[in-house]
Amino acid sequence: MPTLDDIREAAQELEGRIHRTPLLTSSALNERFGAELVLKAELFQKTGSFKVRGLLTKLLRLTAAERERGVITVSAGNAAGALAWAARNAGVPATVVMATTAVPAKIDAAREYGATIELVEGDLMAQYERIKDERGLTGVHPFDDEDVITGHASLGLELLADRPDLGTVLVPVGGGGLISGVATAVKLLKPQVRVIGIEPEGADVVSRSLAAGRPQKLPTARSIADGLAAPVCGTRNFPLIQQYVDQVVRVSEQALLEATRLVMSRTKLAVEPAAAAPFAALIEGSIQLDHAGPAAAVLSGGNLDVSKLMLQV
Amino acid sequence: MPTLDDIREAAQELEGRIHRTPLLTSSALNERFGAELVLKAELFQKTGSFKVRGLLTKLLRLTAAERERGVITVSAGNAAGALAWAARNAGVPATVVMATTAVPAKIDAAREYGATIELVEGDLMAQYERIKDERGLTGVHPFDDEDVITGHASLGLELLADRPDLGTVLVPVGGGGLISGVATAVKLLKPQVRVIGIEPEGADVVSRSLAAGRPQKLPTARSIADGLAAPVCGTRNFPLIQQYVDQVVRVSEQALLEATRLVMSRTKLAVEPAAAAPFAALIEGSIQLDHAGPAAAVLSGGNLDVSKLMLQV
Repeated sequence: MPTLDDIREAAQELEGRIHRTPLLTSSALNERFGAELVLKAELFQKTGSFKVRGLLTKLLRLTAAERERGVITVSAGNAAGALAWAARNAGVPATVVMATTAVPAKIDAAREYGATIELVEGDLMAQYERIKDERGLTGVHPFDDEDVITGHASLGLELLADRPDLGTVLVPVGGGGLISGVATAVKLLKPQVRVIGIEPEGADVVSRSLAAGRPQKLPTARSIADGLAAPVCGTRNFPLIQQYVDQVVRVSEQALLEATRLVMSRTKLAVEPAAAAPFAALIEGSIQLDHAGPAAAVLSGGNLDVSKLMLQV
Repeated sequence: MPTLDDIREAAQELEGRIHRTPLLTSSALNERFGAELVLKAELFQKTGSFKVRGLLTKLLRLTAAERERGVITVSAGNAAGALAWAARNAGVPATVVMATTAVPAKIDAAREYGATIELVEGDLMAQYERIKDERGLTGVHPFDDEDVITGHASLGLELLADRPDLGTVLVPVGGGGLISGVATAVKLLKPQVRVIGIEPEGADVVSRSLAAGRPQKLPTARSIADGLAAPVCGTRNFPLIQQYVDQVVRVSEQALLEATRLVMSRTKLAVEPAAAAPFAALIEGSIQLDHAGPAAAVLSGGNLDVSKLMLQV
């Protein structure tokens, strides 16, 4: 489990390589929800999401031999660009295994950052394992990894550095990568701060894992919040979530859509639906913000599929 | 014609009442266009667009008698919210005449700010004149007004205060309100800075007015950049544009759509299509940024119709 010293060290390694994203406020959102909200604008992070925090931390901590041989990951799209960017930043060759059916823009993004893209059909994981072994590459899991968690935890440090009076932190939840890191940092620093996760009804693997007492796997995970549609809860993330997260709530697809539109129209930030998840929970009334101090909502990313923006005269 | 002293006085009147919007940068956009660009994030302005600058200036300069009786405007929607907000801020009662067919969200926005909404059918202008006369209200034109122009000019002062080395200013063009003010401020301060306007092919009334040597009127003006679809060039705006604007270029609907998506995906700012117009011109290659110094693009607003954001699993 990461200690505060580990997390602080990761934050120092990241400094100057990634953005220190701002905490923004919106009087319209405060008025709408009758609470003081602050927005961690992680959509302005390098590659448009928090993911570079953990992935870059991971790459910077590889051995010299591992760095030279290079890394490999498998991605439906979202982690591909972040790993490719982090690899270029860290000077490590990267290979990304993607399905031939992946969104072309996401393939292009990873390729533009200089990653080797392997487009495969059939069993993605089997192909990934084969290429990894053949080429002697180091596998990088996008969230189920202690260094990745430690890197993501840097976001928690920034939250409390900027607003030491925070009462609550609201974090979108997919496979548990971001929230396991953020909750660890926040609770190690200030145990009285509440940490609440929000996940889509159709991709509620963390809620189910908490109920079952161990990491679960879903047969399918689907949501308009594609960044949260992980079918598994990470084995390294789970115990941290169990220990440090106060509550995980589910939100409907309808609320996710409404929240995305609400945040965009009120803040003029181009959030992806995953980032709007905390507001979906506020819309549905499943979170009460009656705790002392402002609530921080982590706007986790802005990698909206802009081809879905339909405009007509 | 506004003088620098007029404009500076307006800027002082606005100070503390509206936002001093930031100048942002995007390395991805700089790379894409091979130039140093700075983005005036006016989409973060009160009510989500620059319009409050001029309208609030207008209201603050009314006589005590005019303020007491109140103001009236006619709007297809965009100016309605800005006038209603400005009126509340200035403590002036406001009436907005809108068509019954106006976008409900825009009617609601104006109503929420406390304006009296008159929904009318048939000839909007005739109904507006009738209500204005019956109630003794002062009419406020959204752009063809010297005080409005002077207020909009405050944006030009801010540009040069933040980046005295600017070489070019790129301004979206509808009826000429914003560009007439910005160009006046910029050229009075630094005549060597280029000011370029960008308007949609399907709403090119300013280009046509410049070609004809006098303000023109279009039978129809349509564009996905609804904020720029003005059918008339203001009579007070036209001479300032003639004198101070170096060039006005037209952009296609396809380029406007592409530019909106490009700016959103690269900057994570929820721009409305009007605000992306400068980038439409850069995409089409109709503007060369070979002038010394960075180019400022005015991101004029973020009042995107979010119901057009289609998201599906």
